Amino acid sequence: MNANMERPRVVIVGCGFGGLEAARALAKAPVDITLVERTNHHLFQPLLYQVATAGLSAPAIAAPVRHLFRAQANLTTLLGEVTSIDADARRVLLRDGDALPYDHLIVAAGATHSYFGRDEWAAHAPGLKTLDDAFEIRRRVLLAFEMAEKEPDEAKRRGWLTFVVIGGGPTGVEMAGTMAEIARTTLPGEFRRIDPSSAAILLVEGSPRVLGAMPESLSASARLQLERLGVEVRVSSRVTAIDANGLEVSPPEPAAPYRIEARCIVWAAGVAASPLGRQLASAVGAEADRAGRVVVLPDLSVPGHPEISVIGDLASAKSHVEGREPVPVPGVSPGAKQMGRAAAGNLLRRLRGEATQAFRYRDYGNLATIGRNSAVVDLTTPVGPVRFSGHLAWLFWLFAHIWFLIGFRNRIVVLIDWASAYWSSQRYARVVTDIERVVANQSSKKPPL
Amino acid sequence: MNANMERPRVVIVGCGFGGLEAARALAKAPVDITLVERTNHHLFQPLLYQVATAGLSAPAIAAPVRHLFRAQANLTTLLGEVTSIDADARRVLLRDGDALPYDHLIVAAGATHSYFGRDEWAAHAPGLKTLDDAFEIRRRVLLAFEMAEKEPDEAKRRGWLTFVVIGGGPTGVEMAGTMAEIARTTLPGEFRRIDPSSAAILLVEGSPRVLGAMPESLSASARLQLERLGVEVRVSSRVTAIDANGLEVSPPEPAAPYRIEARCIVWAAGVAASPLGRQLASAVGAEADRAGRVVVLPDLSVPGHPEISVIGDLASAKSHVEGREPVPVPGVSPGAKQMGRAAAGNLLRRLRGEATQAFRYRDYGNLATIGRNSAVVDLTTPVGPVRFSGHLAWLFWLFAHIWFLIGFRNRIVVLIDWASAYWSSQRYARVVTDIERVVANQSSKKPPL
Repeated sequence: MNANMERPRVVIVGCGFGGLEAARALAKAPVDITLVERTNHHLFQPLLYQVATAGLSAPAIAAPVRHLFRAQANLTTLLGEVTSIDADARRVLLRDGDALPYDHLIVAAGATHSYFGRDEWAAHAPGLKTLDDAFEIRRRVLLAFEMAEKEPDEAKRRGWLTFVVIGGGPTGVEMAGTMAEIARTTLPGEFRRIDPSSAAILLVEGSPRVLGAMPESLSASARLQLERLGVEVRVSSRVTAIDANGLEVSPPEPAAPYRIEARCIVWAAGVAASPLGRQLASAVGAEADRAGRVVVLPDLSVPGHPEISVIGDLASAKSHVEGREPVPVPGVSPGAKQMGRAAAGNLLRRLRGEATQAFRYRDYGNLATIGRNSAVVDLTTPVGPVRFSGHLAWLFWLFAHIWFLIGFRNRIVVLIDWASAYWSSQRYARVVTDIERVVANQSSKKPPL
Repeated sequence: MNANMERPRVVIVGCGFGGLEAARALAKAPVDITLVERTNHHLFQPLLYQVATAGLSAPAIAAPVRHLFRAQANLTTLLGEVTSIDADARRVLLRDGDALPYDHLIVAAGATHSYFGRDEWAAHAPGLKTLDDAFEIRRRVLLAFEMAEKEPDEAKRRGWLTFVVIGGGPTGVEMAGTMAEIARTTLPGEFRRIDPSSAAILLVEGSPRVLGAMPESLSASARLQLERLGVEVRVSSRVTAIDANGLEVSPPEPAAPYRIEARCIVWAAGVAASPLGRQLASAVGAEADRAGRVVVLPDLSVPGHPEISVIGDLASAKSHVEGREPVPVPGVSPGAKQMGRAAAGNLLRRLRGEATQAFRYRDYGNLATIGRNSAVVDLTTPVGPVRFSGHLAWLFWLFAHIWFLIGFRNRIVVLIDWASAYWSSQRYARVVTDIERVVANQSSKKPPL
């Protein structure tokens, strides 16, 4: 402990689900916490696809970090980006040159998208992790219909009206399902030259099924629900190239590789840990997995540095139950939250001189939505799994997500937005800004009407 | 009329209040309308300051143009920017190279901010006309407090905590009042090192009073209400220089010019017509006034071209009442709306071979808000002016604005946002994106904490 300070200094890096829970769990602890966050808000990421598809406004799913912690007197919020951790000197270094000393560190810097080494794809197929990403995708989806309306050339118009989502995990399934809704339900009747419902929405997944983390029966149900919404699902298909006008797909043998002309492509395939993961792993001599996540000890700390915990999407952690083989913790928000609470608990134990505890992940199940009235739910209950899909699953998904939204106001706003969207088939947030960048030079010349 | 078309082609440029009303007034007319708009939304500009000050989300005050006109079968919406008008060939030219022929043209391209020839000020003092502008100001206002919290140097911290609004018209008064509210009511308690309520909010106005278009008694009341909210009002003060760290002010003689160190400056001083105004004026040989507005004939058309009307902020128009001297139409939204309806009416008269009518502006009064519970109202009634200010005026202002908001959904959302903001003193939309650009290189180095 630092001699100049009365209380141990705790630094928490990141305010996603993990960092937020850790900070809250330390609310009454005799420590001084600095919560460092790159943005000014906590983002409710499970609903980010709704911002990207114009169903919700950004403030509906984002709460100012500073406001969330206004009453927590032992916590200071700091807007900044951590670039590296100096584990020997016990301080984190910020992009602006500042350094923050700590006695205890909880690293919850999260994940970003990964293009598997093909970073040049990022410009043509944006991923969905931040509000800026969501605005970019909203812009591309809505403007594609506008460009199609202006395009006299049939083949080029097809390119604007072909939407491809790469990756069949929860985000990819949500995006594809909602894009199909937009094309089939929201926009028809609003255009004079094109028929928005003729748009093609394709979901390309490398493995043999969508929602690979779900039981097979629910994957099959999700695929069926997607197809009913009008999404073409192409499984066992790898993407081998992406450019401004389309992508190349390698389907299962013996089919030959083919090209899809598409102007709006969304990347929902790969996730990699924040670069901070590899930096920290190499600084403390820990292992980093292929996705750049830090392989942590059972109590979520890193080897040789019990004062450093890594949680959430940045951690490759296992769940420990006595008498059973440890199993990997899935990269879902309940996992991050539980790790946050566990890391805070172990920090308090260390302050009291007690032994830390191994992390145990409690799996309450898994759910994914596909579109209006469509979802799959896989609950883990004491009497075994409960699985259902369709309308009831969608309602369950809806209320679960609204329940967990941070902040009372947001919940009401989101509920009203959804109730209204549900009854009217309209989408509230069909507003795009920064249009010029997209429109300039994308329209082909055409003769006067 | 074009020989190939059955019905006259009407092109409307811009979908602000004027363009929107003109398009609606032609809903049942036997014409084919193309509505060309640079953005994809109609913006309810009177509430734009609420987006800039984080009180409302963007979708709450913006409605997709295409959606507004989905049921109007004689209208096609086109996303595009008109760069010039070829009055002789009767076509408008778009940035992407397209040309739109017309038989009748209504130009409602609106206004932008003017820096009176000092365009280099734009980078340091953004104005407020578009959603992108509002996001930029929101970013600067909220991040200034974040930067102040990180800044160890007292003088520099003061610079981050000094907010200057240039221009004491309705927008400047609203911005200054709301920024004072944020500093005094919303943020206190959320910071650990700075006291947000110590922020200085200055309103600098070149003329001797704020709200110059209002009666003197209401200007005085507005100033008093601003000062009660904690705004320093400096009238008869001209801004002579603006840079990244502050501005120079020339107060009334004999006081000497002085400098204000301020990192967040908002420009609400000058408005100029869209460049399309001057282009059109010179093309048809009409006069353009100093602000670049086209001086129109009594029926809102331009000399020698009865098929072209100019309305809204792009027009320098007069109101004509028999037996009275014509008076200028003020640049307010009711003026634009009335011109839109009048231009549509004259277009229909020309189609029927009737004479056009001179425009008459009906002045129902003027209102401006200052902050929570603060506003001034100046109603024009058959029995003379009715003037009031304070809480009642604020309620009147609130309901008038919500009433005129486009679209039923938005009204409810705005009402809820406001009711909640009112009771909690919180602001809903304290979310900023694209943070890196602002934060990078703005923080001064400081020693580790």
